[in-house]
Amino acid sequence: MHRVDVHRIPTSGPDDTSGLANLIERGVIDPREVICVLGKTEGNGCVNDFSRGFATAAYKAMLAERLRVSGHEVAKRVLFIMSGGTEGVLSPHVTVFARRSVKGATAGAPRLAGGTFHTADFKPEELGTMAQVRSVERGVREAMTAAGIAEAKDVHFVQIKCPLLTAEAITAAQARGARVATTNTYASMGYSRGAAALGVAAALGEVASRDLGEAVICRRWDLYSRVASTSAGVELANCEILLLGNAAGAAGDLVIGHDVMEDAIDAAAVRRALASAGNGEMVGVFAKAEAEPTGRIRGRRHTMMDDSDINHTRHARAAVAAVIASVVGDPMVYVSGGAEHQGPSGGGPVAAIARV
Amino acid sequence: MHRVDVHRIPTSGPDDTSGLANLIERGVIDPREVICVLGKTEGNGCVNDFSRGFATAAYKAMLAERLRVSGHEVAKRVLFIMSGGTEGVLSPHVTVFARRSVKGATAGAPRLAGGTFHTADFKPEELGTMAQVRSVERGVREAMTAAGIAEAKDVHFVQIKCPLLTAEAITAAQARGARVATTNTYASMGYSRGAAALGVAAALGEVASRDLGEAVICRRWDLYSRVASTSAGVELANCEILLLGNAAGAAGDLVIGHDVMEDAIDAAAVRRALASAGNGEMVGVFAKAEAEPTGRIRGRRHTMMDDSDINHTRHARAAVAAVIASVVGDPMVYVSGGAEHQGPSGGGPVAAIARV
Amino acid sequence: MHRVDVHRIPTSGPDDTSGLANLIERGVIDPREVICVLGKTEGNGCVNDFSRGFATAAYKAMLAERLRVSGHEVAKRVLFIMSGGTEGVLSPHVTVFARRSVKGATAGAPRLAGGTFHTADFKPEELGTMAQVRSVERGVREAMTAAGIAEAKDVHFVQIKCPLLTAEAITAAQARGARVATTNTYASMGYSRGAAALGVAAALGEVASRDLGEAVICRRWDLYSRVASTSAGVELANCEILLLGNAAGAAGDLVIGHDVMEDAIDAAAVRRALASAGNGEMVGVFAKAEAEPTGRIRGRRHTMMDDSDINHTRHARAAVAAVIASVVGDPMVYVSGGAEHQGPSGGGPVAAIARV
Amino acid sequence: MHRVDVHRIPTSGPDDTSGLANLIERGVIDPREVICVLGKTEGNGCVNDFSRGFATAAYKAMLAERLRVSGHEVAKRVLFIMSGGTEGVLSPHVTVFARRSVKGATAGAPRLAGGTFHTADFKPEELGTMAQVRSVERGVREAMTAAGIAEAKDVHFVQIKCPLLTAEAITAAQARGARVATTNTYASMGYSRGAAALGVAAALGEVASRDLGEAVICRRWDLYSRVASTSAGVELANCEILLLGNAAGAAGDLVIGHDVMEDAIDAAAVRRALASAGNGEMVGVFAKAEAEPTGRIRGRRHTMMDDSDINHTRHARAAVAAVIASVVGDPMVYVSGGAEHQGPSGGGPVAAIARV
Repeated sequence: MHRVDVHRIPTSGPDDTSGLANLIERGVIDPREVICVLGKTEGNGCVNDFSRGFATAAYKAMLAERLRVSGHEVAKRVLFIMSGGTEGVLSPHVTVFARRSVKGATAGAPRLAGGTFHTADFKPEELGTMAQVRSVERGVREAMTAAGIAEAKDVHFVQIKCPLLTAEAITAAQARGARVATTNTYASMGYSRGAAALGVAAALGEVASRDLGEAVICRRWDLYSRVASTSAGVELANCEILLLGNAAGAAGDLVIGHDVMEDAIDAAAVRRALASAGNGEMVGVFAKAEAEPTGRIRGRRHTMMDDSDINHTRHARAAVAAVIASVVGDPMVYVSGGAEHQGPSGGGPVAAIARV
Repeated sequence: MHRVDVHRIPTSGPDDTSGLANLIERGVIDPREVICVLGKTEGNGCVNDFSRGFATAAYKAMLAERLRVSGHEVAKRVLFIMSGGTEGVLSPHVTVFARRSVKGATAGAPRLAGGTFHTADFKPEELGTMAQVRSVERGVREAMTAAGIAEAKDVHFVQIKCPLLTAEAITAAQARGARVATTNTYASMGYSRGAAALGVAAALGEVASRDLGEAVICRRWDLYSRVASTSAGVELANCEILLLGNAAGAAGDLVIGHDVMEDAIDAAAVRRALASAGNGEMVGVFAKAEAEPTGRIRGRRHTMMDDSDINHTRHARAAVAAVIASVVGDPMVYVSGGAEHQGPSGGGPVAAIARV
Repeated sequence: MHRVDVHRIPTSGPDDTSGLANLIERGVIDPREVICVLGKTEGNGCVNDFSRGFATAAYKAMLAERLRVSGHEVAKRVLFIMSGGTEGVLSPHVTVFARRSVKGATAGAPRLAGGTFHTADFKPEELGTMAQVRSVERGVREAMTAAGIAEAKDVHFVQIKCPLLTAEAITAAQARGARVATTNTYASMGYSRGAAALGVAAALGEVASRDLGEAVICRRWDLYSRVASTSAGVELANCEILLLGNAAGAAGDLVIGHDVMEDAIDAAAVRRALASAGNGEMVGVFAKAEAEPTGRIRGRRHTMMDDSDINHTRHARAAVAAVIASVVGDPMVYVSGGAEHQGPSGGGPVAAIARV
Repeated sequence: MHRVDVHRIPTSGPDDTSGLANLIERGVIDPREVICVLGKTEGNGCVNDFSRGFATAAYKAMLAERLRVSGHEVAKRVLFIMSGGTEGVLSPHVTVFARRSVKGATAGAPRLAGGTFHTADFKPEELGTMAQVRSVERGVREAMTAAGIAEAKDVHFVQIKCPLLTAEAITAAQARGARVATTNTYASMGYSRGAAALGVAAALGEVASRDLGEAVICRRWDLYSRVASTSAGVELANCEILLLGNAAGAAGDLVIGHDVMEDAIDAAAVRRALASAGNGEMVGVFAKAEAEPTGRIRGRRHTMMDDSDINHTRHARAAVAAVIASVVGDPMVYVSGGAEHQGPSGGGPVAAIARV
């Protein structure tokens, strides 16, 4: 039997690992049990956001030192998923997921369970295509098995870190005659997030396999997952998956639930997600944000898509994070931008973990 | 006896006057009765935001044509207060205030009343100083008289448009030996907003006159108005004041109320402001936003003050507007950035007008 | 016989028309002779740049008043081409082109000649397609006739203002089943500039008609014009063309020449353009700038394409303008961003007008 | 006898140490001889630029591994000075300075010599004050001794990395009653750079000691160093100094020279600096850039100071780097922003190292 514990830790900068180090020193966290470090870092969350790579390097080095193994070895055990962008009230932090075997009887009721999986590296020309969708689909099934979750309905949150295309990668791919999904580096983040989310939807049966194909990626917005949260970054070439749900066989005192925000100001959905997790003490809220692509929210024009100074993902994170923070009374929540195929157009999934 | 009517009109760009023109053509608004056009325009809301001046020019020209008078004459009758910045879900729009004499008995209960005042032009070296505070203080008293409001407690919203210092103005002032409050153009917006807000607080007795002085402007954040909303722009050299409250002698079916947000995620204050206006049909919500200057909201670190890519006023508007929109279910609200001496540090006033 | 005069006028803001007004009052410029106002305004030069529309509105209103005709009538006579973006040392200004009939003998040598043309409005789905290319091609031929220039080799600069796609226009087009060239508003500026430039290249025989087609627009960068300068803006729906060259039949004391910058730091090309205009007193320099799309300049990596905070057109304008200003010793030059099909990839045309 | 070698190495990202690693592996550089890694990294160069800290961490870790010592030990031996901001054509790279003892006769003529020094940490309230000026003054003298340079006239470039004030540091200082030079984090970078530059000027006799005092820092722009280049960053609390000049006792084949750009487009000064270094093969060019604070360059208005979307240091770097790159034909040059007390107002020092 396993239990998953969740530690939300404030950070003073991308490379601030002191909070986790302190919990390790105090014996609260055993570094061997850490399966994922999920962070909000304070870069722009777009292409040239080095705060994500900086944080990943710092946490990897710190855990390598504690575990007395190489950074390479740590990366095989632990998922480092850093989502850039702490716009508005968003507070930089990491959420550390630790998993350990426990003995004795189960809690009697389903409890938080989790599993991880790393896909193989993608070539630039595979990004944002069905090759990525299918690879993630297989990966999600592996992560369910690892988590001990048998049914899709018990999966409440699937966080994936996925790659993007840099100008250099695009040029290199084109030089050898390969065709990439987009030649715009910023746009490539959307394609990668979208393909990964459709992979989740396929694995969980949220979208029928026959509806999938190259033509629907980042086009058919009616096809989406209600639990996927995908985040693109320059610092990796594969997809890294963290899957969370409730399992009867899990121990501990945490429960996860979720709901779907229909738009950026859907506070009611946040309340439903908290209720779905039992309305206990909030341990973490995880949501996706995006600017409604048609340019209207509740019939009113917004200007996020036409702003050439600030990317729309930054606007959307600022808005959704403020709404969630106003409901839970805490700005240290996880809101990640770019919700392609994650929830309905202009909205996104919101998951909550609470203590029973 | 007077009544003040309020029309909230969506715009498709800074110079889109078609909505107001349509209401004039349909006879809903008599252009002679317009006392203020209060807009949210889609520039950056900072120094080089030309969307404000563009909107002002367009509305002035349109009303001049309808009234068959010069633009100069229109500017003497009508306040054009354009607040830049529609970050996040904020929807560009104008709120048009029209005031007319009506005959017959009063409503029996206090109703929305309003008055306006234009101060004299300020010299660059007066911006952000006690000279500006005292000038605004006198102006607010004049506006109360114009509105027919006798007591400070019946004033619920005082919107002021104030000037800023450009690099050229600073250089010119220094060339003749004058000392300006700040040589940073962006910072000058804060000084001007702060001095104007203290002028409101002085006029309404919210701050004792003996507590005022050069040294407190933009320093003593415990001194503030609960109803002031000030907005700086490059397109004027004086302060223009719109004062709103309830008066027993006013007619119509609108009531105004207000409350104060303690921080950017204080949704409860928004609900109290709506209740203070009688919880009727929402006709307009007007709020100020600012990044908590100490860098913490509910004990959590935020990064708005350290962001060199996006000004903190933009972050704060995005956050506060999303919170208010999530409460009222409409993103077409008025949220203006920079709340120096307007509400407590990190918070700001929020006013609501509702139909009885 | 005609002569074209060129007046370069500094501005203190987008709506500052005082310099031109002063020249009109002093009799230097007859407002009836103005054929084009070509401006550098201080917005972001991207989608939400309202400084262009603001400047256009102000100059149109001012000339309408002087000419005692409607703004609509002015727009039929005069081209208002405002290019946004004054990054780095670039100094906001307008260049006013005035054309008048003169009597007497020609100069004996070719002199500056100019002509203008307005195409019909484009539908959103025509932007960035061969429909735009062919319409501009016909327009350039009309403008040559208007200028009295018979041969393509005597054309040295063709400035075109073209439209872009807003989020609203894209949504509207899609709602009626039309397919647009791109759904990204910022990217649409590039497609529009590129199609307009290929129209110039087609008209002047720089690109063979058989090489043109939908598939080459913004893809085949080896196809380009050496004299086109196109600029996209939200404030118009058609293409407005100003064509300049030298004609034996023209009077006056101005000569125009041009060359092509191979990359952003090609100072030698600027010197050759000045020489091509006779190395006389500089009256105006006009250039296009773009970030080398492969990410390398002289073999060195640049980061303009991967910057999610500042658009690459802004970086490119800052660089090219500084190089030109350092050669001519004056930062009041015209450098416009986005050189799709205008000069070689990463470079762009540079034209110079000088007094004999 | 010593010689200093200079290696300019392109980087593919802030943490790309592969170029230096390759030179070490090939035996070109002995890691024990590295005294300074001076980098241009691709962040915003302002407060929240994590590319500098990321690069520093990566280079420190790599050298620690090669030298088999702790990172702490490396930091005592090697200066890591990372200047953020690669606007326009600027190409990310590091310049590695290596110094070693050599035997045999001197070159017969002065050759490149260098020395380093680390000051003690500063308290927040010392930043931008005479305490910082005097500490740097002493440090520069120490670095001259280390370089074997006796006379101020032989010093051609003094690069200093200095700290800035974060919102947290300001709040902490104020909490214990200390007064900081500025409460604006971005402005603090200027104060720190300015004080460090005055320290250089004092040490080299460029400014008389009697002219120095709190009131002149970032106010008396006529007081400046012609060789100082200072750069502020969040990743350190002291000042780190690299001093370069020519010494008769130095070996090798490199010579350094310098000149002063009077403004951002002063290409002639760049040519004079190259000449001052003997016009040999260019090994490195190092310059400071700043936006002319009065808002005018050669009498023309610029808009860098009034831009609330892009900080003026970014504009200035883009402009100056393009001018220098156009002269030397290579965009891989070192241009750092913010030239307070470094060269005249609006200009800055430019140094060149060339092979004899």
